[in-house]
Amino acid sequence: MARHRVVVVGGGFGGLRVAQGLAGSDVDVLLVDRNNYHLFQPLLYQVATASQEQEAIAYPLRSIARRHRNVSFRLAEVEQIDLANKQVLTDNDAIPYDTLVLAAGSQTNYFQNDSLKQHAYDLKELQDAVALRNRILRVFEQAAHESDPALRKALLTFVIVGGGPTGVEFAGALAELVHMVFQEDFPELEVNEATIILIEAVDRLLRFYPEDLSDYAKRRLIGMGVDVRLNTLVAGATSDSVLIKDGPAIPTYTLLWAAGVKSADLTDTLPGERARGGRIPVTPQLHLPGHEDVYVIGDMTYLEQNGSPLAQVASVAIQMGRYVARDILNTQHGRERKPFRYNDKGSMAVIGRGAAVADVFGINLRGPLAWLAWLGLHIYYHVGFRNRLLVMWNWAWDYLFFNRKVRLLTWSPHENLDQAMHEPATNSEVPVSVGK
Amino acid sequence: MARHRVVVVGGGFGGLRVAQGLAGSDVDVLLVDRNNYHLFQPLLYQVATASQEQEAIAYPLRSIARRHRNVSFRLAEVEQIDLANKQVLTDNDAIPYDTLVLAAGSQTNYFQNDSLKQHAYDLKELQDAVALRNRILRVFEQAAHESDPALRKALLTFVIVGGGPTGVEFAGALAELVHMVFQEDFPELEVNEATIILIEAVDRLLRFYPEDLSDYAKRRLIGMGVDVRLNTLVAGATSDSVLIKDGPAIPTYTLLWAAGVKSADLTDTLPGERARGGRIPVTPQLHLPGHEDVYVIGDMTYLEQNGSPLAQVASVAIQMGRYVARDILNTQHGRERKPFRYNDKGSMAVIGRGAAVADVFGINLRGPLAWLAWLGLHIYYHVGFRNRLLVMWNWAWDYLFFNRKVRLLTWSPHENLDQAMHEPATNSEVPVSVGK
Repeated sequence: MARHRVVVVGGGFGGLRVAQGLAGSDVDVLLVDRNNYHLFQPLLYQVATASQEQEAIAYPLRSIARRHRNVSFRLAEVEQIDLANKQVLTDNDAIPYDTLVLAAGSQTNYFQNDSLKQHAYDLKELQDAVALRNRILRVFEQAAHESDPALRKALLTFVIVGGGPTGVEFAGALAELVHMVFQEDFPELEVNEATIILIEAVDRLLRFYPEDLSDYAKRRLIGMGVDVRLNTLVAGATSDSVLIKDGPAIPTYTLLWAAGVKSADLTDTLPGERARGGRIPVTPQLHLPGHEDVYVIGDMTYLEQNGSPLAQVASVAIQMGRYVARDILNTQHGRERKPFRYNDKGSMAVIGRGAAVADVFGINLRGPLAWLAWLGLHIYYHVGFRNRLLVMWNWAWDYLFFNRKVRLLTWSPHENLDQAMHEPATNSEVPVSVGK
Repeated sequence: MARHRVVVVGGGFGGLRVAQGLAGSDVDVLLVDRNNYHLFQPLLYQVATASQEQEAIAYPLRSIARRHRNVSFRLAEVEQIDLANKQVLTDNDAIPYDTLVLAAGSQTNYFQNDSLKQHAYDLKELQDAVALRNRILRVFEQAAHESDPALRKALLTFVIVGGGPTGVEFAGALAELVHMVFQEDFPELEVNEATIILIEAVDRLLRFYPEDLSDYAKRRLIGMGVDVRLNTLVAGATSDSVLIKDGPAIPTYTLLWAAGVKSADLTDTLPGERARGGRIPVTPQLHLPGHEDVYVIGDMTYLEQNGSPLAQVASVAIQMGRYVARDILNTQHGRERKPFRYNDKGSMAVIGRGAAVADVFGINLRGPLAWLAWLGLHIYYHVGFRNRLLVMWNWAWDYLFFNRKVRLLTWSPHENLDQAMHEPATNSEVPVSVGK
């Protein structure tokens, strides 16, 4: 009799935990992802600010699959699910399953604002971080020999929208890159001309964290020279500015949109209702309603606990993944099944060198202690010994030498400087007409 | 009185040595490159075979410039030289010089064969190595679920044209990647189905090395499973094959052209005659003939010594760079000037784990001793302490664990799997119609 076949769509935090939880068991697992690596998304902002190599935060999924006889990997883009015939339909294949786990994650939510989609950078995929890093380096290179002061100022203005952990961590890291590294790299420039603006729609940063931690984060960032603008809404963007609702436009060539995520496109192909952000409401056992053979986990899901929906964060996806692996085995072996319950261990965010906020075990930490906890946690959750070492080494180098060794402007195959200047990574142009 | 201004075009081995040789002196140096990093080209094949991160072999040029008050950097693509007015013309600027050093290097020579230019990979830039790595990973992923044996075989066939150090080193590294790493990564495949073919036009590999070392390299590669075909000429390529002169075409989706280089395009804009490969004959003091204020060094040059032209290799560029720095200062200070003389310290090439050939100080080495010498030399010439550590660490990891941690299929910004499968890095398609 053929072994029970579990297909997991998505090799992120959730999907990977399912596969790892089923490793060595009596079911077969096929992990499917459109990338051949697991991406440690929380550190994308470090690739974008030149303190990590791309490869340090990405882990080949076959490295994991190869360790377990019952786990295999398929590189494919999943386009839709044929629930009736129990098949996953990819761009070139139909993959049958007995049990399906959907863990395709989330994507940036531009709230149907096309100007943002066209002109902003985001941080969800590795190539996003590389594109943003390239843009930052490029505008500095351009500014370095730009004689028009207004243009130079615009080139050196960076706007970040979204006061959650992504925006806060990126703002802090960018401030450090500019004031500690580029300060030395660009003697032609007065790097104090550079402006970093962090925009948040509500009245505080890190809105889901305790208030005193929000305050600490704001004070830290301001102390690092970041212009924090609360209660501010963004109306859109052009190729050379960000449009502020009820306020003047900000001339800039680098806009990071970190103000929201929505469920992966795959959810559009599934039946049933949707919650906010396109998320799929799931049963207490994390099933797609009406489909006992399909689980949905991580950022794709909508599940309330204690009256509020669980956040779209890594720790939720991880716990859901572990739960699903156990639930699959319990079901297979006729054991008792329990509903999923998320154990909220708290939140953390780092704000530059030696400082962070953490709300763990009911205790609010801030400053160096929180920072160490943040470091420890990120390393713990990192996949692969070598990647842990590399990430830690990069942190040590950065901390000790105030130097970012990954300040490389890298090109896509067949891209060159001329092409890049005229057809940059987004559709927003960096100006090329410069004086001497 | 304004300081004497030296403009160096190209931050490769030659240009960098000029800048370093003039550091701290009484002239000003402006180093110009279209990339913001120095690339350690000899290790490109390691990025292409997933044993180094891109960033490990690239060193930000501003890191070097920042250490010296009289050295600065400009990111620009140089389009031509206005010799009359002593200006370097870039895509958006005109840079004046008192002394000019042209060190723009070389590019792949396809010998006017457009089918090769269109369908082959090469290894001259960082993005080339990334594109080739992506292709290798992609064809394996495709083959992993390809049921048509002929198509699978073609997907797993790799053709390398050029039996010089680049081709030899890449062939050995690819053989190791396939037989030691992919063997474990792809349990779905019989990796012995993979074929690596190394094609050379003359009757031996490493044609400019001593004959016994050529023999050793050939025997090593054959022992590693590489199909070495000497006295074989390539007529062209299609999207799914390599055309052999007077022989059957080889079905393949991965062709590396490492069979020759020619001078950078910049040489086309300069006056005077050309030697073979578009190289510029220079005076004994490495001047552009008729222009005492212009030097040309490295792969762009043609200079005979002992009856033969100096090879287009790193050590020649390095010695020329050092010489030019000294000659500029000697000229500035009215000191005696000498002609350039290359001191040939020998050659090396590595052929996989623990084996290499080296012809140094008149002694032929092979095997582990040569390999250690190769490692030592490459590390010595590597720029930057951190990069040296990273490269060595990757070597150690690879050597100890037979594992290549950089097996990542990375995408350009806005590229995705579907797009990549249909519009791959070169114009050669990887087939997408597969059976189940």
